[in-house]
Amino acid sequence: MQTIAVDAMGGDHAPKAEVEGAIRAVRSLDVKVVLVGQEDAIRQELAQYEDYRNLPIEVAHAPDVVTMEDSAARAFRKKPNSSLRVASRMVKNGLAHGLVSAGNTGAVMATAKIVQGVVPGVDRPALAGIFPTMKQTPVVVVDVGANVDCTTHQLAQFAVMAEIYSRMIIRRPNPRVGILSIGEEEHKGNDLTRSVAGLLKRLDLNFIGNVEGSDIYAGDVDVIVCDGFVGNVALKVSEGVVDLVKLVMRESLEASISGKIGYAIAKNAFTAFRKRLDYSEYGGAPLLGVRGVCIICHGRSNANAIKNAIRVAKEFSEGQVNQLIERELARSAFGENGNHVERPLPENV
Amino acid sequence: MQTIAVDAMGGDHAPKAEVEGAIRAVRSLDVKVVLVGQEDAIRQELAQYEDYRNLPIEVAHAPDVVTMEDSAARAFRKKPNSSLRVASRMVKNGLAHGLVSAGNTGAVMATAKIVQGVVPGVDRPALAGIFPTMKQTPVVVVDVGANVDCTTHQLAQFAVMAEIYSRMIIRRPNPRVGILSIGEEEHKGNDLTRSVAGLLKRLDLNFIGNVEGSDIYAGDVDVIVCDGFVGNVALKVSEGVVDLVKLVMRESLEASISGKIGYAIAKNAFTAFRKRLDYSEYGGAPLLGVRGVCIICHGRSNANAIKNAIRVAKEFSEGQVNQLIERELARSAFGENGNHVERPLPENV
Repeated sequence: MQTIAVDAMGGDHAPKAEVEGAIRAVRSLDVKVVLVGQEDAIRQELAQYEDYRNLPIEVAHAPDVVTMEDSAARAFRKKPNSSLRVASRMVKNGLAHGLVSAGNTGAVMATAKIVQGVVPGVDRPALAGIFPTMKQTPVVVVDVGANVDCTTHQLAQFAVMAEIYSRMIIRRPNPRVGILSIGEEEHKGNDLTRSVAGLLKRLDLNFIGNVEGSDIYAGDVDVIVCDGFVGNVALKVSEGVVDLVKLVMRESLEASISGKIGYAIAKNAFTAFRKRLDYSEYGGAPLLGVRGVCIICHGRSNANAIKNAIRVAKEFSEGQVNQLIERELARSAFGENGNHVERPLPENV
Repeated sequence: MQTIAVDAMGGDHAPKAEVEGAIRAVRSLDVKVVLVGQEDAIRQELAQYEDYRNLPIEVAHAPDVVTMEDSAARAFRKKPNSSLRVASRMVKNGLAHGLVSAGNTGAVMATAKIVQGVVPGVDRPALAGIFPTMKQTPVVVVDVGANVDCTTHQLAQFAVMAEIYSRMIIRRPNPRVGILSIGEEEHKGNDLTRSVAGLLKRLDLNFIGNVEGSDIYAGDVDVIVCDGFVGNVALKVSEGVVDLVKLVMRESLEASISGKIGYAIAKNAFTAFRKRLDYSEYGGAPLLGVRGVCIICHGRSNANAIKNAIRVAKEFSEGQVNQLIERELARSAFGENGNHVERPLPENV
């Protein structure tokens, strides 16, 4: 059975959402959860679930809490016994298979990278955003903020890692991989996209070339690689557009009675949609390339998002995603080996 | 009176939309329009307006048409007598004050730059997107696709040009200027944004620092500078999100009768919104830094968009925006002169 360490003090609704998410996870999945954080606060939440002593849930005390105001460096230097750090250490020491945190994204990325270390062959871990699309399957966009000013080599590694994630976790049989650019033609783009395209073509990937910003949500590509600066802008612009659409709709509709009804109905759909952009349904954003597993949830995550993140962490570990990443990076050595080999698909668990 | 040359063969609905837009413009504004393109086709459209011979409208024949399939280089080499080229030449030769085209964006940018030339002091012209916001005034985002792999110096020039555009055309009295980045703190961003921030701070601008992708639509900043790659991704992502929102809404709502009504009402609001993203209300995207004036409209532009673009071209010329750009670039010399001088605002025309 997989054991997942949950940073119980991380999110905006901590530890309530974390505890409830853990309870839901252990009830519905074959997984054990260690809730890491201030023991009293966690036990107080747990007490609401009468049967919790019979469930595979443990509590590990950690006195300190990393806040949203802490810089990543400060969190690491000044809070060696934060819930985040203790949970990450459990993964490093083999006491847990993966880490889930809805805390300060910068601090989680830095802590996981330093404490858990990096998968052999990986230059820099990358944060993958899981976005909804107009088709049924979500798209993996990588990087969405862990690395700015990326090299060609790093982006190619992001592609390899995200392709494996799409295959093993999202269960796309032959993920289509594209580069985020500003035109579909190969010569469109910037120096980085053109050189990455040259490299990805030589790798054993289902590479479809350039895609545009509007293709992120179209659902015709499974993995999109980009520099973390561009990916982060894309993510934040999306959130901004949704807020604007909501406002424009209300203003357009409130002018009439029928409009008022329409808006009242439409509002719930918007709220649902906005949540989807927060990727709670998809179990948070995986930090690809760190040893063990690290799933970063949005600060606003509710219990359902935490539960889904625990599920993803479990599947990530069971699917041996890191071993596949290590093997694939070594095998491909970026174009030196063009032979196709069979790639594993997840079992139907 | 200002004379504006309109590429009558450019857009998806050419020459119908162009002719109707020109008629509307000369009827409501103090402006003269030269419709450039295949004379027969233009005159056939004009014949629908009985009084057109009494209006300040002329036709200039140009036999060739640049299509969306033409590359910018091919359009320039192979079609020296295209409607676009002839219209641009009229501006160069002083027969018109500005160019409006809804044609192939790449070809329009290249043609205007080569034929009309560049304002003294400008390294590279920049395409400015005019985006709607949650407040009443639109925001100028520059560059949205003319230049990728920009230098610090170029981005600072974009800021200076767009600030003048915001002041003179959008009529913001003291435009707030921000850099598109991935966090508000100064150290957040990439090498380019950090070095641009250092430069903009020394200029005589109302510089507010970094803004994020979600701030584009919030309305708390008037000018946002970014590399054309990032700006183009932001523009296209926005279009993609709107399409996705529309689909998710329909799916959520069609499940119930009241939902169906809600969707039917909401749909029109969406269509209106999508149009706003095409910046037709704001008169197209100005190519800042070319001599004369060049306003590029979306290919789907309707008559209203063309009319608004003619209005903007007229105001751009009347407001002597290029002279202001030239003076400001020479004056500031990027930080060497920190003295504040009074800046003109447009007259209440």
